[in-house]
Amino acid sequence: MKKIIFIIGVSGCGKSTIGKLLSEELNIPFFDGDDYHPKENIKKMSSGKPLNDDDRHGWLVTLNELAKKQLENGSCVIVCSALKQKYRDILNKGIENQTEWVHLSGSFYTIYNRINARKDHFMPSELLKSQFNALEEPKSAITIDVKLSPKEIIEKIKSELMELSEFGLLGLGVMGKSLCRNLANNGFKISMFNRHVEGVEENVAVDFKNEHQELSSANPFDKLQEFVNSIQKPRKIMLMVNAGKTVDIVIDDLLPHLSEGDILIDGGNSNYNKTKERFDYLKSKKIHFIGTGVSGGEEGALKGPSIMPSGDLEAYKKVQPFLETIAAKDENTLPCCTYIGPEGSGHFVKMVHNGIEYAEMQLLAEVFSILSATGKNPDEIADVLETWKNDADSYLLNITIDILRKKDSNDWLVNKILDKAGNKGTGNWATIATAQLGAPSTLIASALFARYTSFYKEDRVEANKNFSNENDLNLDISSKDLLNTYQFARIINHYQGFNLINQASNFYKWDLNLSEIARIWTGGCIIKSSLMVELVDVLKTTNSILSNEKIIKQINTIKPSANRVVSQCVLKEIPISCLSESLNFFNSYTTENSSANLIQAQRDYFGAHTYQRIDDDSDKFYHTNW
Amino acid sequence: MKKIIFIIGVSGCGKSTIGKLLSEELNIPFFDGDDYHPKENIKKMSSGKPLNDDDRHGWLVTLNELAKKQLENGSCVIVCSALKQKYRDILNKGIENQTEWVHLSGSFYTIYNRINARKDHFMPSELLKSQFNALEEPKSAITIDVKLSPKEIIEKIKSELMELSEFGLLGLGVMGKSLCRNLANNGFKISMFNRHVEGVEENVAVDFKNEHQELSSANPFDKLQEFVNSIQKPRKIMLMVNAGKTVDIVIDDLLPHLSEGDILIDGGNSNYNKTKERFDYLKSKKIHFIGTGVSGGEEGALKGPSIMPSGDLEAYKKVQPFLETIAAKDENTLPCCTYIGPEGSGHFVKMVHNGIEYAEMQLLAEVFSILSATGKNPDEIADVLETWKNDADSYLLNITIDILRKKDSNDWLVNKILDKAGNKGTGNWATIATAQLGAPSTLIASALFARYTSFYKEDRVEANKNFSNENDLNLDISSKDLLNTYQFARIINHYQGFNLINQASNFYKWDLNLSEIARIWTGGCIIKSSLMVELVDVLKTTNSILSNEKIIKQINTIKPSANRVVSQCVLKEIPISCLSESLNFFNSYTTENSSANLIQAQRDYFGAHTYQRIDDDSDKFYHTNW
Repeated sequence: MKKIIFIIGVSGCGKSTIGKLLSEELNIPFFDGDDYHPKENIKKMSSGKPLNDDDRHGWLVTLNELAKKQLENGSCVIVCSALKQKYRDILNKGIENQTEWVHLSGSFYTIYNRINARKDHFMPSELLKSQFNALEEPKSAITIDVKLSPKEIIEKIKSELMELSEFGLLGLGVMGKSLCRNLANNGFKISMFNRHVEGVEENVAVDFKNEHQELSSANPFDKLQEFVNSIQKPRKIMLMVNAGKTVDIVIDDLLPHLSEGDILIDGGNSNYNKTKERFDYLKSKKIHFIGTGVSGGEEGALKGPSIMPSGDLEAYKKVQPFLETIAAKDENTLPCCTYIGPEGSGHFVKMVHNGIEYAEMQLLAEVFSILSATGKNPDEIADVLETWKNDADSYLLNITIDILRKKDSNDWLVNKILDKAGNKGTGNWATIATAQLGAPSTLIASALFARYTSFYKEDRVEANKNFSNENDLNLDISSKDLLNTYQFARIINHYQGFNLINQASNFYKWDLNLSEIARIWTGGCIIKSSLMVELVDVLKTTNSILSNEKIIKQINTIKPSANRVVSQCVLKEIPISCLSESLNFFNSYTTENSSANLIQAQRDYFGAHTYQRIDDDSDKFYHTNW
Repeated sequence: MKKIIFIIGVSGCGKSTIGKLLSEELNIPFFDGDDYHPKENIKKMSSGKPLNDDDRHGWLVTLNELAKKQLENGSCVIVCSALKQKYRDILNKGIENQTEWVHLSGSFYTIYNRINARKDHFMPSELLKSQFNALEEPKSAITIDVKLSPKEIIEKIKSELMELSEFGLLGLGVMGKSLCRNLANNGFKISMFNRHVEGVEENVAVDFKNEHQELSSANPFDKLQEFVNSIQKPRKIMLMVNAGKTVDIVIDDLLPHLSEGDILIDGGNSNYNKTKERFDYLKSKKIHFIGTGVSGGEEGALKGPSIMPSGDLEAYKKVQPFLETIAAKDENTLPCCTYIGPEGSGHFVKMVHNGIEYAEMQLLAEVFSILSATGKNPDEIADVLETWKNDADSYLLNITIDILRKKDSNDWLVNKILDKAGNKGTGNWATIATAQLGAPSTLIASALFARYTSFYKEDRVEANKNFSNENDLNLDISSKDLLNTYQFARIINHYQGFNLINQASNFYKWDLNLSEIARIWTGGCIIKSSLMVELVDVLKTTNSILSNEKIIKQINTIKPSANRVVSQCVLKEIPISCLSESLNFFNSYTTENSSANLIQAQRDYFGAHTYQRIDDDSDKFYHTNW
């Protein structure tokens, strides 16, 4: 839309300088009003006499005509003091909807000192006072403090004039869309981008904007340069695209359009090692990079997810107001978003979050198997799980109850779903991290492998025919015993998950705060639970939740149930890798003298790998000629 | 050592050409004997008359004096027909130990045709016949067929003169040393290199040579260039250095000294991805690279290891005679060495070998825990294991028995060994591969994690105090039940290991032969066993040993024992992660309808990940608004 931008203000406020810069920045013509004074006016001013309103009238009409003429071709910048409303009314005449007013404002002394510092200006400084007397503050103008630097003034004018967005979001998938609505609902002015793929993804951003009332002031794009230009500098652009190569492609597409100091935020489930690489790469280009975990699924992203950002702290502070505002709130109304640490620590923490999630889901699946084996239908199983809410409340327990109750014609929907579980990489990476860091998160690994095994559907059907089974045994397991077993395994899972984060924190020198991480996992995310709320306090005093007295007491109470349930399931041949491993891990972890001495002996026997002795606590290594 | 190299043979055999090339190659002076004839001799020959022995006497004495004089400064090459022994005796006089004789030999027609093809030679070809009549074949000379190319002749002379080695071995650690002795014992002439590190590693190769009779003809080095130059081209150099960066450093140190077509063999436990990278890197430098697994520990390497080479098949064929000769032999006396496949497949297979080994060791450690819990001392446990040899014979079982019987003053040595088990990377990588390839080798992962958990010694001691335990329960497990449980778990471990290899073979398109791999694992390596011998045949007809009828029958027989043992150990709180996981994996693997349907429902609920339905076998994915 074509516009006349009038830059106004008293003499010496910097109108000409700013006007010229703005015309360059916007690539539109610049006109200095003073160049259009009739000779009589110039003569009068040169003789030191101020102009009166009659002197000005013809001049202002000339400028109004200039503006009208320019509008035939496009926009332009016109600078003119225009101190009184009636002057502005003349300038505005007939083009009221096509003018923008920028008032460069400062105190008398600020302006006075500026003018005295200038040379060769044709208006003597003693006339300044009369200008301030004449000045009627414009009401609908964009008012800008002249103390700002010219660069800042231009950015400010641009953002006000063009209604630049505060935040950009790239990638309108399930999560991206929900985050856009969340940002808009919280009053942020956003730009939204989705790529254009002929016949596949067309007008995604525009259509999405039109579907939702709250997006009425959001700017939709499918051209990357326009998207980037629509965002205030330093730009804050969140990428919500598929983890992997796509992130690198998008970054390289964005780079030519970005400016020094802009901030990219990767909100996908990227590998933490990749995040570190991208951080370093973008640093060399003077672009900040924030890798952030976002958990909560579609609904969480919309209503308030848990957010785990990492990277440069200074850059984080600039995106903090956005992320903290859209995040879920914990029980003390604090945002479920906290600066995690440097490099890829945010994505590492998100990866472990997902690992814990894998195991929590697998534990519920095993509980489902066991209760099914006792002859209960999904609704009856949901009834049992309802009674667990007091002790084991969690988001996953609740959605499991919903799922079990869902009907599909005359059966339960769950019975119709194919039992091949997918995975998207984070459980895999968490298992790899556990192997690489020497921190045994065995339940995450078990849960991952259980999904893999589920994928061998054809082999399973075949094997089921070949092998006899003991399914005819009676299974005698009380709800209380099963709940205890489930809770026991969950404690082990959470111990292992936080231990993995702690090991990574030590190894990479990230200095992570486990209690804060537990806190931002109490809301918004998939693994929020009453247990997680408990752990916020537990982790304030220890990095190992198994050393907490309350938890020790709880385990001592519930462990015998776990022993009974697991041993019965083994006899009954119900697959319970995760529940079973929770016991075995715990039994290893609490064994003072393990059988690893035999393994050390074997390694020394065939490979001369040496061993240490229990009766020599120096670091000496022994080798035996066996 | 200074030497005179006499190149002899009839006229036209190429003495001058070869002599000059050799002098250039060895950087020593060249003398053509014909240049030292007195004028009378030249005149006589020019007139077409052959020289008689009197004519030759003075000339030969001159050459003998030339040789003696040259020896004061160094070596040289002298060419001279020297057809009769008595001529050679004159040449040899007083320098008998410092001469080397190279006879360029060919048939009359070969030489005759050569001479007719030449121009401007001062001896007419019709005299050739008299030369052949005069020729007395020298006995101690290096005789070389003139039909070879000059380059080949030079290489041959060099290798004979300098006694070039057939094979080089770099890195004299435990495994490197054993392989050297093995190669030497098999009659191969080898060069051996170990780096020189002042005060730490000095004269390693020389000292090692002096310690062992069989190394009397081996060449020891601590200077890299000399080591490389001492090996026949194309050189075959086996690296036995620590896996990791050291391999790359050694390769870069070697490169300037290598020649096109040389072959490097990495016999360490390198990561298979790295082997692929190195293969590509060296290919660009026209050097062949063979990554090979070597299993057997110190003793195996000495007496015959199992060898798993991969890379370029043509290059492998050149090292095949060495590797197959030093390898262990299977029950049919075939070498336990086979070309595995392209790229890093050899190291992949070795990695899985080690993974299987990890689990086999852990299973024995768990058996040891269980038998200890029944109150048996190590000798009594060894007695039990002795009785298992009929059914479960293996290298690891045998060394475990040895270990358990070993005393240390008035206790068993095993009781004195600190229970913190180390690891060197391959178990770790196998677990990572299992995660990356979606092939659940859960027993390898369990065994790795058990080692990791053993490392938490201080935490374990502390936890042991905090948590109550059920160790006062009676454990009632028969030797037969335990043996069955152990065998059951071993079958699962082997199933998973071969399945992992099979998945990798499909994924990387390596086309691996599982039965051949089992066969080379029946001798020399750490996991050789009677079970492995059985699997050679089983894997000829299937990639999944769990689909073999005999194994199905065996499992149906022994599985109830495994159920009883594992469930009792769970109640008794004995940590048996690996045994327990073997059951749980199997129970998952044989479950027709698993609880993964619930996991798919959960994923769709919170992440809209969609699911498939059992009543729709198209590839359609469904999403429910839960």
